Amino acid sequence: MRFEDNSVLINAFRATRLQSVQMVEPLHSEDFSLQAAAFASPPKWHLAHTSWFFETFILKVFVQQYQVFHPRYEVLFNSYYNAVGEQFPRPKRGLLSRPTIDEVLAYRAYIDQAMERLLLQFDHPERLAIIGRCRLGIQHEKQHQELFCTDLKYSFAQNPLSPVYLDLPITEQAYRHPQSWLSFQGGLVDIGVPEAAAESDEGAFSFDNESPQHQVYLPPFQLSDRLVTNEEYQAFIDDGGYRRAELWLADGWSKVQQGEITKPLYWQDDGDVAQEYTLYGLRPRQANQPVCHLSAYEAEAYAGWAGARLPTEFEWEYAATQQRFSSAAERFYHPQAVSAEAGAENITQRKSGQGALLQLYDACWQWTSSAYRPYPGFKVCAGAIGEYNGKFMCNQWVLRGGSCVSPNAHLRPSYRNFFYPEDRWQFSGLRLAKTII
Amino acid sequence: MRFEDNSVLINAFRATRLQSVQMVEPLHSEDFSLQAAAFASPPKWHLAHTSWFFETFILKVFVQQYQVFHPRYEVLFNSYYNAVGEQFPRPKRGLLSRPTIDEVLAYRAYIDQAMERLLLQFDHPERLAIIGRCRLGIQHEKQHQELFCTDLKYSFAQNPLSPVYLDLPITEQAYRHPQSWLSFQGGLVDIGVPEAAAESDEGAFSFDNESPQHQVYLPPFQLSDRLVTNEEYQAFIDDGGYRRAELWLADGWSKVQQGEITKPLYWQDDGDVAQEYTLYGLRPRQANQPVCHLSAYEAEAYAGWAGARLPTEFEWEYAATQQRFSSAAERFYHPQAVSAEAGAENITQRKSGQGALLQLYDACWQWTSSAYRPYPGFKVCAGAIGEYNGKFMCNQWVLRGGSCVSPNAHLRPSYRNFFYPEDRWQFSGLRLAKTII
Amino acid sequence: MRFEDNSVLINAFRATRLQSVQMVEPLHSEDFSLQAAAFASPPKWHLAHTSWFFETFILKVFVQQYQVFHPRYEVLFNSYYNAVGEQFPRPKRGLLSRPTIDEVLAYRAYIDQAMERLLLQFDHPERLAIIGRCRLGIQHEKQHQELFCTDLKYSFAQNPLSPVYLDLPITEQAYRHPQSWLSFQGGLVDIGVPEAAAESDEGAFSFDNESPQHQVYLPPFQLSDRLVTNEEYQAFIDDGGYRRAELWLADGWSKVQQGEITKPLYWQDDGDVAQEYTLYGLRPRQANQPVCHLSAYEAEAYAGWAGARLPTEFEWEYAATQQRFSSAAERFYHPQAVSAEAGAENITQRKSGQGALLQLYDACWQWTSSAYRPYPGFKVCAGAIGEYNGKFMCNQWVLRGGSCVSPNAHLRPSYRNFFYPEDRWQFSGLRLAKTII
Amino acid sequence: MRFEDNSVLINAFRATRLQSVQMVEPLHSEDFSLQAAAFASPPKWHLAHTSWFFETFILKVFVQQYQVFHPRYEVLFNSYYNAVGEQFPRPKRGLLSRPTIDEVLAYRAYIDQAMERLLLQFDHPERLAIIGRCRLGIQHEKQHQELFCTDLKYSFAQNPLSPVYLDLPITEQAYRHPQSWLSFQGGLVDIGVPEAAAESDEGAFSFDNESPQHQVYLPPFQLSDRLVTNEEYQAFIDDGGYRRAELWLADGWSKVQQGEITKPLYWQDDGDVAQEYTLYGLRPRQANQPVCHLSAYEAEAYAGWAGARLPTEFEWEYAATQQRFSSAAERFYHPQAVSAEAGAENITQRKSGQGALLQLYDACWQWTSSAYRPYPGFKVCAGAIGEYNGKFMCNQWVLRGGSCVSPNAHLRPSYRNFFYPEDRWQFSGLRLAKTII
Repeated sequence: MRFEDNSVLINAFRATRLQSVQMVEPLHSEDFSLQAAAFASPPKWHLAHTSWFFETFILKVFVQQYQVFHPRYEVLFNSYYNAVGEQFPRPKRGLLSRPTIDEVLAYRAYIDQAMERLLLQFDHPERLAIIGRCRLGIQHEKQHQELFCTDLKYSFAQNPLSPVYLDLPITEQAYRHPQSWLSFQGGLVDIGVPEAAAESDEGAFSFDNESPQHQVYLPPFQLSDRLVTNEEYQAFIDDGGYRRAELWLADGWSKVQQGEITKPLYWQDDGDVAQEYTLYGLRPRQANQPVCHLSAYEAEAYAGWAGARLPTEFEWEYAATQQRFSSAAERFYHPQAVSAEAGAENITQRKSGQGALLQLYDACWQWTSSAYRPYPGFKVCAGAIGEYNGKFMCNQWVLRGGSCVSPNAHLRPSYRNFFYPEDRWQFSGLRLAKTII
Repeated sequence: MRFEDNSVLINAFRATRLQSVQMVEPLHSEDFSLQAAAFASPPKWHLAHTSWFFETFILKVFVQQYQVFHPRYEVLFNSYYNAVGEQFPRPKRGLLSRPTIDEVLAYRAYIDQAMERLLLQFDHPERLAIIGRCRLGIQHEKQHQELFCTDLKYSFAQNPLSPVYLDLPITEQAYRHPQSWLSFQGGLVDIGVPEAAAESDEGAFSFDNESPQHQVYLPPFQLSDRLVTNEEYQAFIDDGGYRRAELWLADGWSKVQQGEITKPLYWQDDGDVAQEYTLYGLRPRQANQPVCHLSAYEAEAYAGWAGARLPTEFEWEYAATQQRFSSAAERFYHPQAVSAEAGAENITQRKSGQGALLQLYDACWQWTSSAYRPYPGFKVCAGAIGEYNGKFMCNQWVLRGGSCVSPNAHLRPSYRNFFYPEDRWQFSGLRLAKTII
Repeated sequence: MRFEDNSVLINAFRATRLQSVQMVEPLHSEDFSLQAAAFASPPKWHLAHTSWFFETFILKVFVQQYQVFHPRYEVLFNSYYNAVGEQFPRPKRGLLSRPTIDEVLAYRAYIDQAMERLLLQFDHPERLAIIGRCRLGIQHEKQHQELFCTDLKYSFAQNPLSPVYLDLPITEQAYRHPQSWLSFQGGLVDIGVPEAAAESDEGAFSFDNESPQHQVYLPPFQLSDRLVTNEEYQAFIDDGGYRRAELWLADGWSKVQQGEITKPLYWQDDGDVAQEYTLYGLRPRQANQPVCHLSAYEAEAYAGWAGARLPTEFEWEYAATQQRFSSAAERFYHPQAVSAEAGAENITQRKSGQGALLQLYDACWQWTSSAYRPYPGFKVCAGAIGEYNGKFMCNQWVLRGGSCVSPNAHLRPSYRNFFYPEDRWQFSGLRLAKTII
Repeated sequence: MRFEDNSVLINAFRATRLQSVQMVEPLHSEDFSLQAAAFASPPKWHLAHTSWFFETFILKVFVQQYQVFHPRYEVLFNSYYNAVGEQFPRPKRGLLSRPTIDEVLAYRAYIDQAMERLLLQFDHPERLAIIGRCRLGIQHEKQHQELFCTDLKYSFAQNPLSPVYLDLPITEQAYRHPQSWLSFQGGLVDIGVPEAAAESDEGAFSFDNESPQHQVYLPPFQLSDRLVTNEEYQAFIDDGGYRRAELWLADGWSKVQQGEITKPLYWQDDGDVAQEYTLYGLRPRQANQPVCHLSAYEAEAYAGWAGARLPTEFEWEYAATQQRFSSAAERFYHPQAVSAEAGAENITQRKSGQGALLQLYDACWQWTSSAYRPYPGFKVCAGAIGEYNGKFMCNQWVLRGGSCVSPNAHLRPSYRNFFYPEDRWQFSGLRLAKTII
C-alpha cells in the first residue's frame, strides 16, 4: 500500500479513528473509567491517548502555531514517553472521571480535523515525515484497539455480574482437529524485515523492532499444526500440572505456590459446568477451542508435560513464512469489525491443504521461548518516538501470530508482540514445538 | 419527634431518600464509580448500599415472601456485616461499573415502594421493631450523605483537573474572631444518653454508642471558644512544625518521616498563592477559616506546639451541653440542602453572646484526645445490627461536633464520630483545651 | 528505698548491671545478633543500648570532657530518641554482627567504671540530677531485662530446632483453682502516684506515665480472682472462637481472616499432644496454667464469649491497691534471678486468704480495655528524656500487673505497661471483669 | 583431569572442603548467621548446605543404611530442591542461630568421613554415578565459595562500622590501560560444550547448562580489550547518566526513579573522597580499576551512553575461545586461596600480546545482553538434580567470564553465570561491544 495517492492515507486514518469510536458503542458511560489493574487502561483513556499521540508527535511538531485542545492533556494522556515529560500515574488512570466521555470525543474530533487539514497540505516541507508519523499513529491506534478489548475483558471480569460487551449467539461448536507435526529443515535463515518503514511512504508498514533483517541459524525442528486446546489443557490439570514443581520454571512455581495461578485466567467452573468469561459474558467452555489467557510459565509447564517445548520466535517466523497464506488473508471468518473473541469462540474446521499451520493469526497469540531483545544492529530512533518499542526490550517474552481481537494490519510473520511471562490478560495460548535430533 | 403519627416517619423517610438522589445530581455518569482509596466509596455505591440496608434489615425480615431486587446485590452492597454474609471487597467497589446508575436508581425506587407499603401496615405484628429499624435506616442514610461528600472530595482531589462539584460564588471572607478561653468547673458529670432509642418509637434518636449514660469525673478545664484557623496552622508550619519530632506522637512522626503528611490534606500552594481544593474546586485559602482535614497526629502536634492540648470527649460533651444553642439550631447560615463546604468556605462572624462556644457543629469535626471505646455497661445488640458500631471500638479516636457537610439530625452534644488517628479525609479540625491547675 | 546513703544506689546499679550479663550466660555467641522481627531486638543490642542510655543521658551530660567509648555507638544503639539524633534502623539491628559480644562487654565495663566514678563524686554540683537519672537508668535496664526474655523467646521460636534457653526440669503440675468473682464498690477513687520521682532521690521510683495522681469515677464492678487458663481458652477455640466474627473487634477479625491469628502465639500441637514453646524449649501444655501470649483482640474475644469483659486499667489498679500483698512480696516462689517462665510453668496452689486476687504480678501481664493515654495534667519532660514514655501514648493498650519475667522492681499497682493490641510476644494473658448492674 | 586414579578425586574433594573452612577463619562467631537480604545466605548456611548436598545426593542414595547426621537438617539446609521436599524459608536463614558453628563443623566432619569411606569403595556397583555426583558436589561447593564472598560483602556492607574481612595492605595502584577494539569475523560458530560431563568420570567438568553444543550465526562484531573503569563510569554519572531516561530500559528507569539505583552498589563518597566498600573494608576508589557491582540496567545504560552495546553471550564465548590464554592460567597474580577482591583491588598492567582480551576472568563478571535460556536440545536431568540449573532459565541474564572471587575451576569460555538484571551484589561489571556494519 503506497500513499503517494493521499486519499489512501486519509481513508486509512479515518477508518481507524472511526473504528475506535465504534468499538466503544456497546459501553455504558459508567464503563469508560473502568480500570481493574495498572496494566489495564480504561476505555476512555485509550480514546484520549491515541488522540494525544497524533497531537504530540505530529500536530505539535508540524503545524505552525498549533493550539492544543487542553493544556493538561499533555500529562494526563502521556503513556510512558519520558522525553515528552511527566505522566499521570498509570495505576490511577481509572480515577480520571473527568474529562467526561463527551469531552474526550470532542478532543478526538478536534484532532481529526487538524490532522485532515495537515494531510491535505501536499506542499508541506516535512510532507514525508508527516506521512511516516501518520502511518505510525494509525498502527499505534490499532494496537490500542486490541488493548481496549483485552483491558475491558480483564476489568469486566472482576465484576460478579459478568458484564456482556457483545451479546451474540453462540453459532457453532469448535471441531476436533487431530494434531499433527510439521517438520522444518531450518538452516541459516533470514529473520525480520529489511528496514523499518515507519518514516517512509513506501512499502508495507512494520515496527522498528522487526528490523534489521538478519540471519539466524536454526537446527531442524517440528511445529504442531494447531494450538493446544482446552480439553488438552484440562488433562494437564487433571494430571496434577499445578502441583508438580518439576514441570515449572522457578519464577512460575513461586506464583503457583502463592496461589496466583491455578488455572487459565478466565476459567470459572460452576459445580460441574465448565465455563469461561468472555466478552460475550459467561459462556460454556468448548473442549476443542484453543486454551487462552495463559502465562508463559503455564505454557512452558504444559509443553514440558506434553513432551515438547515452546518454539523460538525465529522458528515460528521462519515456519510462518513457509505458509501459502501467511497473512491476514486467512481470517476469512471475521464477520464484522468488532468481533472480539469470535476466534476464541468459534475455531471451526479449516479447509487447509495438507501440512498447513492452522490458527497462526486468528485465535490466540502464541508464546515463544524467546526473550524480547533487539535484533543485531537495532538502533533506537532519536527523540521520544524512540521510546515506542526499544526501552521495553528486557524481561519480556515474545509472542507471535495474532488473536481474534488483533487488527488485520498486524497479522504478518515478522510481527513481534511482547509481554512479561506472568502476564495473562492478553489472548495468549500456545503451539508446541520439538527439536529434531 | 414521635412517630405514632405515621406520616412523620414516612415523610422523614421520603425526605432522606430524596436528599440522597438530589446530592448526586451535579455529577456526570462517569463520576458514579469513582473510588480513589479503599476508604472512599463511589457515589453509586452509597446510593445502592443505603437501599441494601433497608432491604436487608427490614424488608427481608418483616415482609412475607419478599422478592429481592437482584440476588447478587446482597453481596455486592454489603459493607461490613459478617453476620449477613460475604462482602464484595471494599477496595474494589470502584470496579463495579455495573449495575449502572440507572439500574441503581431503579433499585432505589423498588426499595422505596416496598418500604412505604410496609410502613402503612399499621397492624403489622412487628410494627414497633419496623419503626425502630426504619429510624435507624434513615440515620444510617444520613451518615452516608456525609460520607458521600467526604469520599467524593477525596476522589475528585486526585484529578489534576480539580473537578467542581458545586459551582457557587465565594460570598464573603471569613471574619477574624479573636480567640478566648472559656472555663468549666467539671466535677462528676453525666455523659451519654440514658438509653439507645434505636428500636423504639419514643423520644429523640441516638446511636447505641452514645449509651449507657454514666458518670465521669472531670477536673476543671478550659476550652477555646473557636477552632484553630488556617493562619494559625500556617504559623505552626512556618515554625518547623513538621520537622520537630518532639511535637509528635511516635506513630505520627513515623508518617511524617515517610512523607505521608506534610500539610493539611487539601492544601495546594501554587507559587505564592495559598489554595485549597474544595467541593467548589480549587479556591484561595482563607486565613480565618478553620483549618480542616487534619489527622489526629497533626491536631495533637499543633495543640502541644500552642501550649495546649486536645479536649477529652467528655470535656467536649459536658461543655457543649452548657451552651444555650447546643444543637443544629445554630446552623442558621446553611443556604440549601446540599451545601457541602459552605462551612469551610464561609465561617463568618457569629453574633453569639459572651462566652459562647462557636463552631461547635457547623465547620469541622473536632478531634478529641479520647480513644473510641464502649461506655461502661455497653451491650452490643444481637444479630447483624450489632455490628453497626460496636466492633469498631478500638484503635480509633473520637471526634465531636459536626461539620459543614453533616446532616442536621446528627448535631448534638452526645454524638460520637470516630476515625483512625491517621485519617484526614473527613472534615476534621481542632479546638484547643487546657487543664486548669 | 532512699539513696542518701550512696552505697544503696551503687549497689543497685551494680546488681542491675550484673544481672543483665548473667542473663546472657546461657547463650552461644551465634545467638547474640538474633532478631526475628523489628520489635524483637537482639540480645547484644539490649546489652549495648542499656549502656548507651547511661552514657548518653548521664556521662555525656555530667562528666567533664567525657570521652565516648566509640563515636559510632551514638547512632548504632540509640533506640528511638530523635532529640539525640539519628538511629540505626530498628529492623536491621540483627545485622550488626559487629561490634562483637566481647566488644560490647568491654563497652559495658567502660560505662560501669565511668558511672561508679561519677556516683562517688558526692560534691558534684548536679548530684541530685545524676542520682535521679541513674535511678531511671537502672529501671530502664530492668525493663530491657524483661524485653531480653520476650525478644529471645520470639526469635528462638522461629527455629524448628526449638532452642532451649534454660534447661530446667518441670517440677510440678499447676493446680486447678476454681474461679470466683470479687466485687468492688468503686466510686471516686485515686489513680496514679502523686508525682514522678524520677529526678529525685526521695521515695519509691515510678515512671512519669504513672502520674499525676488524679480522680476517676468507677461504677461497681467485679474481677475474677485468677487468670483465664489454657483449658478455658481451649474451650473457646473448640466452640469456634476463631471462626465467629461476632466475637471480634473488626481490626482483630481482619487479622484472623488473614490467617495471622489462629491460636495463642506459642501453642504447637503435635498430633494429639498439646505443646507450647517456652524458654525451656518445647514442653507439654498444662491445662491449669494461665493462657499466655494473646493479643488484646483475642483477650476481648474470649471475654465476650465468656459473658464478661476486660477490666479498665483504673478498675485493675483500684482493685490491686485493695490487696494485702499488692507488690512483689507475693513473688515468693521465684527460685533465682533468671527464672524466665517459671511463672508460666509453675503456677501452683496459692495459700491466699479469702477473696484475694491471685496472679496479679507473677504469671502474665493482663490486658485492660484502656487505651494508653496520658493522665490529666501529664507533662512531657523537657529534652530527649521526655521521649521515654510520652510519645507512645496513642494506639496502644494498657496492660497491668507483671509476668514471670518481670523484674521485682516493677511490680506495683500503678505500673502501666503498654503495647499495640495486636502484639503477642509479651507474656500477656487476661483476667475477666464484669459490670455490676 | 581424569579420575580413574581415585586419589585425584579424593584430593580434589579434600581440598575443596578444606577451602570452605579456611575461608571462614577470619570471621567472628557473631558473623556466622549474618544475612542482610533473602538472596545473601549466612556463612554458616553455606557451610551446612554444601554438606547437605553431598549427604542428600550421594550418601543417602548410595550408602546402605546411611544414618543422617540430624533429621531436621534435610529441611533446614535444602536450598531450593522441591523434589527433595520442604525448605526452610530462604529469607529466614539468618534466624538459625542454632545449630551453632561448632555443630555445623561437626556436621561437615561427619559428611567428610562418610564421603571418603564411600569413595574408597572401588567395587561399589554405582561407582560411576558416585564419581559423577561427587564431581558435581565439588563444583557446587566451589560456587558457594564464591557466593560466600559476595553474600558476606553484601551483609557486612550494611554495618556502618564497615567490617574488614581481610586486612591486607593496598599493594599498588591500577595502571591506566588505553582502551582498544578487537574485531571478530563471526559466522557460523560452535557454542557450548559437546555434552554435560557431570555424570561421567571422563574429561573436563562442565555444567549441564553449557550443553548441548550447537551452532550460532554471528555477524561481525568488535569487543573492547578491557573492562569499563571507575573513572569512565564516573564520567557517565557526571554527564547525568542517572537522570536521563532515554539511556535506560524501562524496568531499570523505574528503579532509578524509585531511588533504588543511584551509583554502583558499594560506592561511598565521604565529601570529596571517593571510596568503596570492599572485603578489605572501606577503601579509596581507584580510577583505573574496573567498575564493579552494576546491575544489567546500569551496564546497558552505560554502554548506550558510550555509543556501544553489551556483547551477546555467544559473541563473548566465541571471542574468548580465540584467546591464547583462555582459562584460569591468566590468573597469575592471585596470591593466596582466599584472595577476595584482590582482582578488584589490583588490576595491574598486563603483559599480554597485541590484541589480547584482558580481564576476561580475573576482575568482574561481564554482563551480556543475552537472556538466560536453555540451549537447543537441552534436557533437564531426571530427579532433584535436574533442578540444579534448568528451572532458573527465565528472567535472568547471562554473565560471562569470572571475577576476583571466582574459583579457578570455573574459569572457561563456556561457563554461563546468570542473575536477574537488577542484581548488583555479584562482582558484575561490563565490557563494551559493537556491531560492525
